[in-house]
Amino acid sequence: MTPQCTTPRHEDERVLLGHGAGGRLTAELLDALLLPAIGAPAGPLEDAATLPPIGLPVISTDSFVVSPLSFPGGDIGSLAVHGTVNDLAMRGAQPVALAVSLIIEEGLPLAELRSVVESLGKAAAEAEVPVVTGDTKVVGRGAADRLFITTTGIGRRIPALHPSAARAQPHDAILLSGPIGLHGTAVLSTREGLGFEADITSDSRPLHRLVKALACFADDLHTLRDPTRGGLAATLNEIAEASGTGAEIDESALPVPGPVAAACDLLGLDLLHVANEGCLVAYVPEARADDVLHTMRRAPEGASAVRIGRTTAVHPRRVDLLTRVGSRRVVDMPLGEQLPRIC
Amino acid sequence: MTPQCTTPRHEDERVLLGHGAGGRLTAELLDALLLPAIGAPAGPLEDAATLPPIGLPVISTDSFVVSPLSFPGGDIGSLAVHGTVNDLAMRGAQPVALAVSLIIEEGLPLAELRSVVESLGKAAAEAEVPVVTGDTKVVGRGAADRLFITTTGIGRRIPALHPSAARAQPHDAILLSGPIGLHGTAVLSTREGLGFEADITSDSRPLHRLVKALACFADDLHTLRDPTRGGLAATLNEIAEASGTGAEIDESALPVPGPVAAACDLLGLDLLHVANEGCLVAYVPEARADDVLHTMRRAPEGASAVRIGRTTAVHPRRVDLLTRVGSRRVVDMPLGEQLPRIC
Repeated sequence: MTPQCTTPRHEDERVLLGHGAGGRLTAELLDALLLPAIGAPAGPLEDAATLPPIGLPVISTDSFVVSPLSFPGGDIGSLAVHGTVNDLAMRGAQPVALAVSLIIEEGLPLAELRSVVESLGKAAAEAEVPVVTGDTKVVGRGAADRLFITTTGIGRRIPALHPSAARAQPHDAILLSGPIGLHGTAVLSTREGLGFEADITSDSRPLHRLVKALACFADDLHTLRDPTRGGLAATLNEIAEASGTGAEIDESALPVPGPVAAACDLLGLDLLHVANEGCLVAYVPEARADDVLHTMRRAPEGASAVRIGRTTAVHPRRVDLLTRVGSRRVVDMPLGEQLPRIC
Repeated sequence: MTPQCTTPRHEDERVLLGHGAGGRLTAELLDALLLPAIGAPAGPLEDAATLPPIGLPVISTDSFVVSPLSFPGGDIGSLAVHGTVNDLAMRGAQPVALAVSLIIEEGLPLAELRSVVESLGKAAAEAEVPVVTGDTKVVGRGAADRLFITTTGIGRRIPALHPSAARAQPHDAILLSGPIGLHGTAVLSTREGLGFEADITSDSRPLHRLVKALACFADDLHTLRDPTRGGLAATLNEIAEASGTGAEIDESALPVPGPVAAACDLLGLDLLHVANEGCLVAYVPEARADDVLHTMRRAPEGASAVRIGRTTAVHPRRVDLLTRVGSRRVVDMPLGEQLPRIC
């Protein structure tokens, strides 16, 4: 164990190619920086981890390439936990274990690596899910942009829940657990130095406790989705496509923080395309909507939950926005990239 | 679905940033290229996949950053399957499901992406393990080097097996299932255009069937490890460290193909540090060694299995090489990187 890894003595201590070679430097990076930062016990590592028996296992994987690495409300480390925990939660599952793989660009300051991995460890601890295995690769300068993290989550599905995009039905109410547009505009503003970052904080947070609180609605939770990449527009269109139902969204019901609206106006962004990392949409029978909303609002993650629209059999597979001025416009699936490297 | 994705019409059709944005282009890339290439059914995708119940689950994750993407005997796609399947197998597990996450550099030719993803799908089919979920991110030109793949595997441990680096014991025989040095020298030679690539083919292949064939040895399979990054030197030292036993390796017993020896001589590489992707070391009680070797040799992956040494209580935690000329030298843990981006 070298002092170099234990405590960076100089600001210029950086990741070397050799830290990814599987030899002594790799072991030092693990023992002195990565494992303590994640909160894992040091000691002999195996290439695979054993888990407790899982009756209804669910698996999800996501690569995180957000730039910059840190932004108001989080960083690539916390995002890599929240994103994967939420993908599990959207299938009605509670997280059991995470596997984390790092691809590091040679030259990344060790202090910065430590900071984001500590943030990852803290986010995992707060979500009460252990990081049980991992991998570290180092590529040469210019072969990656600082740091990419791939997080895979194993979850245990709550037996009563089997939400799916395909289960949305005509006459469902569409609920949204919190304000939209925060994550994408926070990252973009930080990256481009636009100045909004003082007023906008990413909504990045885990949603599995909110889903657990909703477990009593069982079969009535037809569909759960978190509107991340591609924003609400992509999520609503995916659900419409998978279920064959149409959707109508009331523009006036959408919870949009003032600074987010201002940022979108200024930048020419369609708010419905902006990524979120801490809210979900739920499709439930109209008759249960008030009860579900009430339960959502009692959870911190759902305190500002609202009803934003309804499904319909009238225009299958199409999502319409009923605008404030009373007109109707089609909400298209976003084509491509408005906001690269937002997650 | 655009013809652009279905069949590349021109050599210059390439991955765009928008292919990673979670919108229509992402859906097209998935439906027209990635899902068919992997052999998965097209159709609505969820963010997480449900799995059958798993009594003794094992999880492993690895990022693959090999450069170049293709080399004699494989490519990043097949390697991304074999590497993860083998990590599961080294804990005595058979693969149940894979999750695959791609980080693609903008501008990667679609034909090249298709080729390696088809190779991944073929390797998964041959290993009889489905790819059940995945993710695709695209980063701008210069922010990654062509393509990185992170593969996470879920396995089911064979109940009789619980191999671990910590379970090696004094008086174990150390067995090796096949020749060493092929993968590292094949990749290096291809990358640097050294000319050996005509004679050297990577040993990349799945080892879970070999492990299954050994299941009858149950508790006597103390330790299984595949000597990948850091080569045999790193693997033997890790086992020595984790178990507190020493090891003695007979140089004359090591199976080294002629072209590999020539490549290492010419390049000044220590053969023991070169990565392998298709062989394993097994630590078993001396009394069972012949039976285990016999069983290994009946499997195609173990046809050239040999005994390469033994553990000892005489020099705990130290690995010695008994050289052809009768001297003894310490096999150190490799320090850092001899061969970057070999896997």
